Amino acid sequence: MGVGDVSKRILLGRKLRSAQLGETLLPKRIAFPVFASDALSSVAYAPDEIFIILALAGVALYSASIWVALAVAAVMLIVVASYRQNVHAYPSGGGDYEIATVNLGPKAGVTVGSALIVDYVLVVAVSLSSAAQYAASAVDYVADHRVLVAVGLVVLLALMNLRGVRESGTSFAVPAYAFMTALGGMCLWGLVRYAGGTLPDAQSAELEIIPAANYEGTLTTIALVFLVARAFSSGCAALTGVEAISNGVPAFRRPKSTNAATTLMLLGLIAVTLMLSVVSLANVMNVKYVDPHDLDRLVRPDGTPVGEDYHQDTLIAQIAHGVFDNFPPGFYLVVIATGVILVLASNTAFNGFPVLGSILARDGFLPRQLAVRGDRLAYSNGIMILAGMAISLIVAFDAEVTKLIQLYIVGVFVSFTLSQLGMVKHWTRHLRSERDPAERLRMQRSRLINGAGFAMTAAVLVVVLATKFISGAWLTLLAMGSFIGIMVAIKRHYENVALELAADEQDKVLPTRVHAIVLVSKLHKPTLRALAFAKATRPNALEGVYVSVDEKETARLLEEWDERNTGVPLKVLHSPYREVVKPIVEYASAIRRANPRGVVAVYIPEYVVGRWWEQLLHNQTALRLKGRLLFTPGVMVTSVPFQLRSSQIAREREEREERRVHPGDLRSGRVDEDTGRRIRR
Amino acid sequence: MGVGDVSKRILLGRKLRSAQLGETLLPKRIAFPVFASDALSSVAYAPDEIFIILALAGVALYSASIWVALAVAAVMLIVVASYRQNVHAYPSGGGDYEIATVNLGPKAGVTVGSALIVDYVLVVAVSLSSAAQYAASAVDYVADHRVLVAVGLVVLLALMNLRGVRESGTSFAVPAYAFMTALGGMCLWGLVRYAGGTLPDAQSAELEIIPAANYEGTLTTIALVFLVARAFSSGCAALTGVEAISNGVPAFRRPKSTNAATTLMLLGLIAVTLMLSVVSLANVMNVKYVDPHDLDRLVRPDGTPVGEDYHQDTLIAQIAHGVFDNFPPGFYLVVIATGVILVLASNTAFNGFPVLGSILARDGFLPRQLAVRGDRLAYSNGIMILAGMAISLIVAFDAEVTKLIQLYIVGVFVSFTLSQLGMVKHWTRHLRSERDPAERLRMQRSRLINGAGFAMTAAVLVVVLATKFISGAWLTLLAMGSFIGIMVAIKRHYENVALELAADEQDKVLPTRVHAIVLVSKLHKPTLRALAFAKATRPNALEGVYVSVDEKETARLLEEWDERNTGVPLKVLHSPYREVVKPIVEYASAIRRANPRGVVAVYIPEYVVGRWWEQLLHNQTALRLKGRLLFTPGVMVTSVPFQLRSSQIAREREEREERRVHPGDLRSGRVDEDTGRRIRR
Repeated sequence: MGVGDVSKRILLGRKLRSAQLGETLLPKRIAFPVFASDALSSVAYAPDEIFIILALAGVALYSASIWVALAVAAVMLIVVASYRQNVHAYPSGGGDYEIATVNLGPKAGVTVGSALIVDYVLVVAVSLSSAAQYAASAVDYVADHRVLVAVGLVVLLALMNLRGVRESGTSFAVPAYAFMTALGGMCLWGLVRYAGGTLPDAQSAELEIIPAANYEGTLTTIALVFLVARAFSSGCAALTGVEAISNGVPAFRRPKSTNAATTLMLLGLIAVTLMLSVVSLANVMNVKYVDPHDLDRLVRPDGTPVGEDYHQDTLIAQIAHGVFDNFPPGFYLVVIATGVILVLASNTAFNGFPVLGSILARDGFLPRQLAVRGDRLAYSNGIMILAGMAISLIVAFDAEVTKLIQLYIVGVFVSFTLSQLGMVKHWTRHLRSERDPAERLRMQRSRLINGAGFAMTAAVLVVVLATKFISGAWLTLLAMGSFIGIMVAIKRHYENVALELAADEQDKVLPTRVHAIVLVSKLHKPTLRALAFAKATRPNALEGVYVSVDEKETARLLEEWDERNTGVPLKVLHSPYREVVKPIVEYASAIRRANPRGVVAVYIPEYVVGRWWEQLLHNQTALRLKGRLLFTPGVMVTSVPFQLRSSQIAREREEREERRVHPGDLRSGRVDEDTGRRIRR
Repeated sequence: MGVGDVSKRILLGRKLRSAQLGETLLPKRIAFPVFASDALSSVAYAPDEIFIILALAGVALYSASIWVALAVAAVMLIVVASYRQNVHAYPSGGGDYEIATVNLGPKAGVTVGSALIVDYVLVVAVSLSSAAQYAASAVDYVADHRVLVAVGLVVLLALMNLRGVRESGTSFAVPAYAFMTALGGMCLWGLVRYAGGTLPDAQSAELEIIPAANYEGTLTTIALVFLVARAFSSGCAALTGVEAISNGVPAFRRPKSTNAATTLMLLGLIAVTLMLSVVSLANVMNVKYVDPHDLDRLVRPDGTPVGEDYHQDTLIAQIAHGVFDNFPPGFYLVVIATGVILVLASNTAFNGFPVLGSILARDGFLPRQLAVRGDRLAYSNGIMILAGMAISLIVAFDAEVTKLIQLYIVGVFVSFTLSQLGMVKHWTRHLRSERDPAERLRMQRSRLINGAGFAMTAAVLVVVLATKFISGAWLTLLAMGSFIGIMVAIKRHYENVALELAADEQDKVLPTRVHAIVLVSKLHKPTLRALAFAKATRPNALEGVYVSVDEKETARLLEEWDERNTGVPLKVLHSPYREVVKPIVEYASAIRRANPRGVVAVYIPEYVVGRWWEQLLHNQTALRLKGRLLFTPGVMVTSVPFQLRSSQIAREREEREERRVHPGDLRSGRVDEDTGRRIRR
C-alpha cells in the first residue's frame, strides 16, 4: 500500500463516518430517556423542598403548596417553550454556552460555562444524596449511614466512568420508563382511591408540626410572602436538567430540531404532571414533612416529639406507602425506580462534564488537551475533579438534600437567564435583515416567547438570590467567580503565547549546517540503530558522544568502538561526579555557540519497554536529558526508539485504551446503538 | 570558543577536581564526629535496654548488668579491631557490601545490602524515638506526645534533606564533642562524688521492682542464662554504627586507611568507656528501670504501684539528675546534647541511604538512575521512602525504643558476620600468592583478627536470633527477604534487557531513504523553525502534515500555507473525532510499510514554557504523540523546541537545582569544607 492509498483511506474514513452516524442517531423514544432522566429525577426531591419550607410556619401554610407547585409548573412550561426556540435556532449542541457567547459575547459565555460546571457538581451531589434518602426508606441500615452511601455512589460512578462504561440508550430507557410507569401508576391509583374514598392517610398524617422560631403566631404579610417565595425557589429545583436536551440536539434523528423540540415538550408535560400529582396527593393524604434537622418540631398527638429515632421518609415514599398499603411490591417498585433514576441523573453529569470541558477547551478557556478526543488523562482528571468536588459537598452538607438545594438553583437560572437574553438578541439581530413577512412573524413570535422566558427566569433568579443568598447561594456565586477567574486567566495565557509565537519574515532563514551527535552509553543495538539513522540524514558533521564516569568502562567501550569500525569518531566527555546530563548539554551549547547559524541534532537511542515498573528502571536519563535540551536554543532532539519484546504489552494496552468507550460518547453520537461499542473507522 | 576548546575545558575540569578534592578531605578531628555520631549515640539507649531485660526478674539480677556490659564491650572491641583490618584492605568506601560481594559473591553482597537498608530505616526510627524520650525528660508536654514528636522529627529531617541541607563537618563536630564532654563530664563527676561518698541515689532508687510473670521465685539455670543472653542481645545495640567509618574511608585525609583505623580505635575506646561508666553509675545509684509498658511492676516502698502518671526518665537522665543535683544546668546540658546527637545519628541515615543506593544501583540491583549524581527525583524518592518506612515503624511501635530494638540488631550483625567472613576469605586468597614472610605474617595476623571477629559476631547473631526471633527479629528477616527479592528481580531484568540489546552484525545496515514529515498545528514560529531544521537535514522526501478537525480552520491554514510559499507540500489528514495522535501514527507507519528499508523522521515543533501550570496548558499532545511514536518501528521522533520568554524561569530553576547540595555529598567528598557549597568545576 502506497502513501497515496493511505491518505485516501484516511480521507475515506470521514465519509464512512458520516454515513454511519446517521444510523446511530437516537430515535425520540430513546433520546427522551437519555436526556430527560436528569429533569424527571428532580420530581423526586423538588416537592419535598416546597413542603419543608412551608412547614416552617407549621401546617397552616401547607395549603399553599399546590399554588407554589402551580407557579413552578408555569415557570417550567415557559422555560420549555423558550428552549424549543433555542433548539431550532442553535441545533449544534453548544447549548446555553454557545447562545450566550454568540449573542452576548465571551464574558456571558464564560459565566454560563462556570454556572454549568457548578451545576454538574451539584447534580451529582443532590441526586445521590436524594438517592441515599430513598434507599433509606427501603433499607434501615442506610438511614444511619446516608453520607457513606452517597459518597459510595459517587465513587462507584466515578470508577465506572474511569473504566469506560458503555452508556447505551437502553440502559437509560428501561429505568426511565420504569420510573414514569411506577410514579404515574402510583399517582393514578392514588387518585382513583381518593375518588373512591379509600385512600388512607400518610404515615405522618397524625403528627403535628410546631412552627419554627420566628414563625410562631400570625405572620406579617412580608414574612408570609418571603416564606412562600422561598418555597417557590426551592421548588424550582424541578427545572434542573431541562437544558440537557438543547445540548443533545446533534444526537437526535432528522429532523433533529423538530424532534428535539417535541421531546422537550413531552418532557415538560410529564414532569409538570408528575410534580402536581405528587403535591396534590401529599396534600390530600395529610403528609407532614419538616427539615430533617428540625425533627423535634414534629410532635405526636399527645404532644411528645417523635424523637431522633424517627425516620422521616420522602414524600414519594410516604405516598407510595399509603397508596400501595394493600400492595407492598408497588411501594418497593416506586422507591427503587426513583433511586435508580437519581443515579442515572448523576451519571448524566459524568457524561456531560467532559463534553462541556471539550467545548470550553476548544475556545481556549480550559487546557487544550480537554478538547482532544481520547485523551485519557484529561478525561480521567475531569472525572476525578467532578467526583472530588461532589464528595466534598456531600460530606460538608451531611448528604442533606435540603441544604444542598440552597446552592443548587442559582447556577441553573444564571444559565437560563443569559441564554434567553441571548435568544432575544438573536431574533432582534435576525429581524433586522429578514424581509419575508411570514418568516418575520415567526421570528417575532419566537422573540416574544424567549422574551417571556427571559423575564420569567430573571425574576426567578432574583427571587432565588434574595431568598437563598445567606443560606448558601453565596457559596455558589463564589465558586462561579473562581471558575470564571481561572478560565479568563487561561484564555489570556493562550492569547499571549499566540502573540509571542506569531510568525514574521525572518523565520524563513535556513540553518547553514547540521552538526549531529549520537549519544553513546553502550555499544548495543539501539546505539547502532541511532548511528545508522543519523548517518542516513547525512549531516555536515557526525560524531558519537560518550560521557565517561569510569576509566575501565571507557577503555572497554573505546576498544569496542574501534573494533566495530563504524566510521564515526567518538568524543569522550569526562564527568568526575557521574553527571551525565550536564556535560552533554554543555557540549551541545558549545557547538552551537561555535556556529550560531547552524543547528545541533542530538540523537538519543532509546529502548522501549512495556510494563510500568520496567519504565521506572529505564530511560530516566534520556527523559531528563530531553527535558534539559528543550531549553537549549538551536538544538533539536531526536529519539531513536528500539522496541524491546515487552513493548508489545504497552502497545496493546494503548490500543485497548483507544477502543474504549469514554464518558460523553453517547451524547456526541459516538456510540453504536446496536453493539454499544465505539464506532470504528 | 571552538568545539575543541570546549572538550578540553571539560577534560580539564577533571584535573581541577582531583586537586580540589585533596583540600576538602576531612582531618581526623572532623571525620571522627561525622562518622562516629551514629555509634556514639547508641550509648543513649543501649544500657537502658540491658536494665529493662534484667528487670524482668526483679532487682535481683541488676548486679549482672555490669557483666553484660563488659561482654558487650568485649564484642565491641573485637569488632573494632576487625574493622581496622577492613579499612586497610578495602579503602574504597564500599564497606561491608563490597567486601561481601568480592569475597563471597553477589548473593552475600545483596544480603548485606538489604541488611543495610533495613538498618538505615531502624537507625532513624530508634534514634528519633530515643530523642523523643530524652526530650520527654526535659519537657513534660513531650512525655504525652512522644509518637508525635518522633514523627515530627522524621518529617523535619526529611524536609531538610529534600531541600538540600548543607551537611558540614562543623555541624557534626560541635554537637558530637559537646555530647562527649557532657557525658564524659557527668561520668567523671559522678565517680568523683562516689569516691567522696556524696553521690546521691537516683530518683527511682527507693522503688521496688516486682518480677514479671514467669520470672517470680528462683529461676532455673536455663531461664537465667536465656534472660542474661537477651539482655546481652539488647545491649549489642551499642555496636550499631561502628561500620560507618569503613564506608567513609575515601573522605579521610591521607594516609586514608591509617587515619580511618586510628579514628575507629578512638571511637571504640570512647564508646566502651562511656557505656561502662553509665552502667556502673546506674548500679551504684540504684536506678530502677523497667519496660515502659510494665510500669505497674514498679512499686513504692509502701507497696503501691507508681501508676500511669509516673514518667520514667532514661538511665542517663536519671544519672544526670542525681550527679548534677546541685548544678541543674549540667542536667540540661547532658539531656540536650544526647538529644541532638541522636538526631544527628538519624540524619546520618538520610545521608548514607542515597550513597548505598548509588552503589547498589551501579551494580544493577536498584534502578539505574539512583547511580546518577543529582537526579533529584531519585534522591527525593529515596528520602521519602526512608522517611515513610521510619514513620510506619515509629507509629506501629508507639515510638518505644524497647520494642524497636527487637528489630534492630539482626541487620547489623548479618552484615558484620558476612563482612568478617569475607575478610577471612580475602586473607586466605592473598596468602596463597604472597611470598614475602613479613607480609605473610601480617596477613595471618589480620586473618586471625577477622576470624575472631567472625566467630564473635556469628555467635552474637545466633544469640540475637534465638532470643529475639519471636519478639520482632522475624519482621526484620521478612523485610530483608523482600528487599533481596526485589533487588535480584531488578538485576535479572537488566541482564535480560542487555541480552536482548546485544549488537550483532546485521545492525550495520543503513536505512535507504529518509522520509521527513513536519507536524503542523498552526503556522507559527515553532512550525517554521521545525520546517527550516527539517529542510536543513536534506531528507529524501519532506512534507508538512496537518490533522484537520475543523473545516474552517483547515481552509484558513491552507491559505496561509500557500501565502508563505514554503516550498514544502502539506498533507491534510482528516480526523472526524478530533483525534490527533492516531491519524499521525497511522500515517507514519503507512509510510514505513510502503518503504520498509527507509526511515520516517517525524519533526514535532514544541514551544517551551517555564511555569508548572503553563506546562499543563501546553504540549500535552506532543508528549502523547511522542509516547505513541516510540512504539512505531522505523520511526524517529525529533523535537524542535522553541523557547518562549517564560522558559527562562525553568532554566534558572534547573540551574539552581544543580548547584544545590544533595544528601550524602559530604560522605563522598563533594562538599567544600570552607564554604559548605558543592564544589564547582
